[in-house]
Amino acid sequence: MVKETCMTIRVAVLGATGTVGQRFIQLLEDHPWFEIAALVGSERSAGRTYAEATRWVLDTPMPLAVRSMEILPDTADLDTPLVFSALPSKTAGAIEQRLARAGHIVCSNASDHRAEPDVPLLIPEVNPEHLELLAVQRANRGWSGAIVTNPNCTATGPTMALRPLHDAFAVRKLLLVSMQALSGAGYPGVPSYDAVDNVLPYIGNEEPKVETEPQKMLGQLQDGQVEPAAFTISAHCNRVPVLEGHLVCLSVAFERPTSLDEVVTTLRNFRSLPQELGLPSAPAEPIIVRDEPDRPQTRRDRDAGFGMSTTVGRVRPCPILDYKFVCLSHNTIRGAAGGSLLNAELMHAQGIF
Amino acid sequence: MVKETCMTIRVAVLGATGTVGQRFIQLLEDHPWFEIAALVGSERSAGRTYAEATRWVLDTPMPLAVRSMEILPDTADLDTPLVFSALPSKTAGAIEQRLARAGHIVCSNASDHRAEPDVPLLIPEVNPEHLELLAVQRANRGWSGAIVTNPNCTATGPTMALRPLHDAFAVRKLLLVSMQALSGAGYPGVPSYDAVDNVLPYIGNEEPKVETEPQKMLGQLQDGQVEPAAFTISAHCNRVPVLEGHLVCLSVAFERPTSLDEVVTTLRNFRSLPQELGLPSAPAEPIIVRDEPDRPQTRRDRDAGFGMSTTVGRVRPCPILDYKFVCLSHNTIRGAAGGSLLNAELMHAQGIF
Amino acid sequence: MVKETCMTIRVAVLGATGTVGQRFIQLLEDHPWFEIAALVGSERSAGRTYAEATRWVLDTPMPLAVRSMEILPDTADLDTPLVFSALPSKTAGAIEQRLARAGHIVCSNASDHRAEPDVPLLIPEVNPEHLELLAVQRANRGWSGAIVTNPNCTATGPTMALRPLHDAFAVRKLLLVSMQALSGAGYPGVPSYDAVDNVLPYIGNEEPKVETEPQKMLGQLQDGQVEPAAFTISAHCNRVPVLEGHLVCLSVAFERPTSLDEVVTTLRNFRSLPQELGLPSAPAEPIIVRDEPDRPQTRRDRDAGFGMSTTVGRVRPCPILDYKFVCLSHNTIRGAAGGSLLNAELMHAQGIF
Amino acid sequence: MVKETCMTIRVAVLGATGTVGQRFIQLLEDHPWFEIAALVGSERSAGRTYAEATRWVLDTPMPLAVRSMEILPDTADLDTPLVFSALPSKTAGAIEQRLARAGHIVCSNASDHRAEPDVPLLIPEVNPEHLELLAVQRANRGWSGAIVTNPNCTATGPTMALRPLHDAFAVRKLLLVSMQALSGAGYPGVPSYDAVDNVLPYIGNEEPKVETEPQKMLGQLQDGQVEPAAFTISAHCNRVPVLEGHLVCLSVAFERPTSLDEVVTTLRNFRSLPQELGLPSAPAEPIIVRDEPDRPQTRRDRDAGFGMSTTVGRVRPCPILDYKFVCLSHNTIRGAAGGSLLNAELMHAQGIF
Repeated sequence: MVKETCMTIRVAVLGATGTVGQRFIQLLEDHPWFEIAALVGSERSAGRTYAEATRWVLDTPMPLAVRSMEILPDTADLDTPLVFSALPSKTAGAIEQRLARAGHIVCSNASDHRAEPDVPLLIPEVNPEHLELLAVQRANRGWSGAIVTNPNCTATGPTMALRPLHDAFAVRKLLLVSMQALSGAGYPGVPSYDAVDNVLPYIGNEEPKVETEPQKMLGQLQDGQVEPAAFTISAHCNRVPVLEGHLVCLSVAFERPTSLDEVVTTLRNFRSLPQELGLPSAPAEPIIVRDEPDRPQTRRDRDAGFGMSTTVGRVRPCPILDYKFVCLSHNTIRGAAGGSLLNAELMHAQGIF
Repeated sequence: MVKETCMTIRVAVLGATGTVGQRFIQLLEDHPWFEIAALVGSERSAGRTYAEATRWVLDTPMPLAVRSMEILPDTADLDTPLVFSALPSKTAGAIEQRLARAGHIVCSNASDHRAEPDVPLLIPEVNPEHLELLAVQRANRGWSGAIVTNPNCTATGPTMALRPLHDAFAVRKLLLVSMQALSGAGYPGVPSYDAVDNVLPYIGNEEPKVETEPQKMLGQLQDGQVEPAAFTISAHCNRVPVLEGHLVCLSVAFERPTSLDEVVTTLRNFRSLPQELGLPSAPAEPIIVRDEPDRPQTRRDRDAGFGMSTTVGRVRPCPILDYKFVCLSHNTIRGAAGGSLLNAELMHAQGIF
Repeated sequence: MVKETCMTIRVAVLGATGTVGQRFIQLLEDHPWFEIAALVGSERSAGRTYAEATRWVLDTPMPLAVRSMEILPDTADLDTPLVFSALPSKTAGAIEQRLARAGHIVCSNASDHRAEPDVPLLIPEVNPEHLELLAVQRANRGWSGAIVTNPNCTATGPTMALRPLHDAFAVRKLLLVSMQALSGAGYPGVPSYDAVDNVLPYIGNEEPKVETEPQKMLGQLQDGQVEPAAFTISAHCNRVPVLEGHLVCLSVAFERPTSLDEVVTTLRNFRSLPQELGLPSAPAEPIIVRDEPDRPQTRRDRDAGFGMSTTVGRVRPCPILDYKFVCLSHNTIRGAAGGSLLNAELMHAQGIF
Repeated sequence: MVKETCMTIRVAVLGATGTVGQRFIQLLEDHPWFEIAALVGSERSAGRTYAEATRWVLDTPMPLAVRSMEILPDTADLDTPLVFSALPSKTAGAIEQRLARAGHIVCSNASDHRAEPDVPLLIPEVNPEHLELLAVQRANRGWSGAIVTNPNCTATGPTMALRPLHDAFAVRKLLLVSMQALSGAGYPGVPSYDAVDNVLPYIGNEEPKVETEPQKMLGQLQDGQVEPAAFTISAHCNRVPVLEGHLVCLSVAFERPTSLDEVVTTLRNFRSLPQELGLPSAPAEPIIVRDEPDRPQTRRDRDAGFGMSTTVGRVRPCPILDYKFVCLSHNTIRGAAGGSLLNAELMHAQGIF
């Protein structure tokens, strides 16, 4: 177990008024280690209180503690060691770099830095050792701070499920089809007139991320470099009319022969460093395997492990590749703010800040 | 063009009060060749008028012509040469056999007889030549009538799309993931408490059908037997909260090398016998290829060709198999009543009745 | 019946790229009298073809005839006698005035001019005689053209239903609660994250319109002025997760005593001038009364009369006022583009242009 | 505060496998006073374990403690002082009577006994003094146990909101229109094919309950009898496609003049006996008044006070009656199982068992 520190750590949230920003604020309410000390917004929001500037869209009330906090401009100097970034991609890049250079640990949900070789793309259960890249990053860039990213929300669940399978049987090929939630598009996001009674078979720029991020996370760290895992992914990404939770159908081929029982047991027994360390946001079971024929269901299973578990079901042989199954992960908790938060908890537990 | 006959042909509808039965009645209103002469229902409905016995659930009004027709029991003798069967699987088998033996042409939407070697599993654009099985069927069974089936609603769209591709490049492997409409489960079908804001990753007994029916339809008829096409299918079937329209993501590998352009052109240029014959329910384009990145969409494209066209989009290379694309077909029109109706039109045009 | 003219009348559509503009274009395809000759858009769209500039969101395909038409800026001079305006409120005002001054008949869906005393607020079945205001309008303003408006989409259905009731029994009080469709908010309109599994109990600026427009339409024209009907309305407006169709629950008190039978018969027997004239877009039955306990239903009844009929059901005594019932009208057909179109048809049939 | 008893009280749940039964089980998990000791089901379920017999439909997992409990038939003798009844109406009547006669306190969610003069129809914040009817009930019927009912789910929220208003200003008339959740119809309940993109303007047998139950609850107890409050209600009940939460629009007239401020303040300041007693399931605020123009929203506010608070918003003058507002209550928590549970807590705190 992690030793509780007496002092809470002050954190800032960038992009605080958006939906991922709201999730950060929701998840940080009553956090045992971290305390929100600064909220950063766009020029339009800066100078107003959080309650004035924000159209709060989550189903729990806006925490009292943030209502009257004044929103800072994204050019502000911050005095928080830790910064969570919910900035949109493209906007995020320069701001996050400035803060890392200025000594902050930036846990970013944006895609801008994910593919850079000296930036960890991190799921604490999957590749905690990739945090060693931080030394390389600091050496390369001369920063006192650092940037750590979490993956695309659709890549998250499948990568979690693949971790123990890749270790045991070596993934050779992966074909996946996602049924993604509306919240993944942010707010206002998908117009309701496009969403109701409809499936949108396309999500801009999503498939390239899903086809490359898992290999980086499952890759080997050697000599300060990540060698991506050597398998191919083919992704079809779809938007379906559900609020939260990305459900993914996967077919996978392995290098090494295995049995259905071994696959199920390997998934079910998976525990990793966050569970050992007892990190506050770590779910007891990172992967939950359901035996019922009709689970996981998006609405009924997305909140498993407070939205931090990945739920797997319908594991069975695939007549084309080796095995197929269904995998569900909460896209704005584990796939966004919750994932970033767990990254920060891991770094803190390891003394990085 | 088919020569118009002066007389309309009297038809019966079995299972007339259910949702597929209702679709038959809707599609037969104002049909140029066929006229409803008998409605057959369960014991509970028999003797009541159609309006009394039926909870009409379609979005167009119940046709006036059927409102006061008395529902016959399924043991009744019928005097219609043509019978459409919207009976549920398992119930259908014996009743359909009795009627075929008694001389009726039975166009069945049920699965009971689909796999039998002397029963055509028919999509008129895909395998019209399989109607030659009827001679075998009659010889084998001593029937004066016959049974012809249409495929599972989820198999329909992909099989249509595969017909020209299989002819040109020979399908070797097919992996597909469906996002199926609520109407596919009949009425009352899926409880709304299971459907709203949810995906159900399982549909009972669906995947085995989807993994075998296409090969029969794409198979070669030789010496009175269908040799199924020799490729493997892996299916993941899901229920999503849309009313009508089964959207399917497919990845396919071919025996013969081909280019993306050839695949698209082959799909786009496909026309078949129903188009040549000008059958009343045949769509002008059996396969519509959309170039926009985000089509077909379930709600916006399901009614293409009055629900009889298959819409394909997002044709692109697949890093695992050869090509991938999205395919949409209306499940209760082309995938059920409309498909059966087109089967009957083809048989009539060919002089089978 | 209206005498068919040999020549079609050229029309322009303002705000052509928006959802109401799209409905105009959809409804004008194959119109027997009117033909689209000009499409007018915002500065951003002007100069591009309609297909390039428009995100077409309707469920039928974009008509071929408009795809390659170049969008004109809203400052353009038009050579069409008739102009349909789908402009947003506030933008509409000045542009519509300029065109009316320049001699065009402007049929406007915007709210800007609705309350002006010399501008008809018109439902052809309800107050066709209000077109006499055009003489006043032209005298007042020195225009050779004119502006005619159609009412708010939520006011439309109830006003239609009240017309015969007001004539027969004199409405004294009206309390109504609406359950309005998502399309009423335009596009992108309501974010899906707000709409799914939710009711929004507020629609900005809606209740004041619904509480005043019916009285103007049901008012008496005397000496070139409309004296609004002297009754009070209280409205609660809600947004519910349906795509099209505004369902309204009404409780109404009358000046004169009446029976339930009389109320139902009065509603059912209502026919008006558009039916007599046989206007192309006039429904055979302006008010359809359903006897089933559970009709009208939004999805199943909104398309009645091709979206131009108002469907009424559940007529019964109200323990607080006199009678209560449910009323459904298609908000983007009868409540917007279709309503405007019928206004133009009436004016044309009466020789106004 | 209530003194904690050392022993937990053993309870039985009738109708345990249905959705309201499931809610009871969900809410009783970890209850500080009550512990599930018996689950009672239909003949079909009896003898099987709860996990085998139940299609669990809630979004939290089935509690471990009940999974292996054997379901008893509804003819079984029970040894639990307290019985919660989630039986369907009509089935409930005789079974509940048998158990009350046998000495059990039956807290019933069914409508069978609600209207009986010696049976309390109870909301603990509204009419706790009606528990005095139990003495009358026992005297009348010679029972050692008793039956206490909670109201119809749609009547619950409005009655809560009316309690302080009736006390202060005396309600004279109430007109209400409900937009009710799908879960209110039980499971399987409303077919999804009826629910998606639709409003059903009718709920069988609902309006009579909503038009009479509030007056009983707001009535005066005198000489062992409840004199119903003397005001009239008119209700329009609708089903909308949301999962949980009944939203109601109300217009109300009072006997005594009042101001908008007084109405709001009266609602906001309401606290009652359950809050004073600190009952475990009592919300801190029985009525929450929201100031935003667009609240309460069904999805975002239904869980307020863990589903036990009533949320009110948009309080404003009504041009027909005096004031109008919107009111939201969770139909399967406060409106069903949670309401029954709070009734039991009140009775226990008052020493009735």
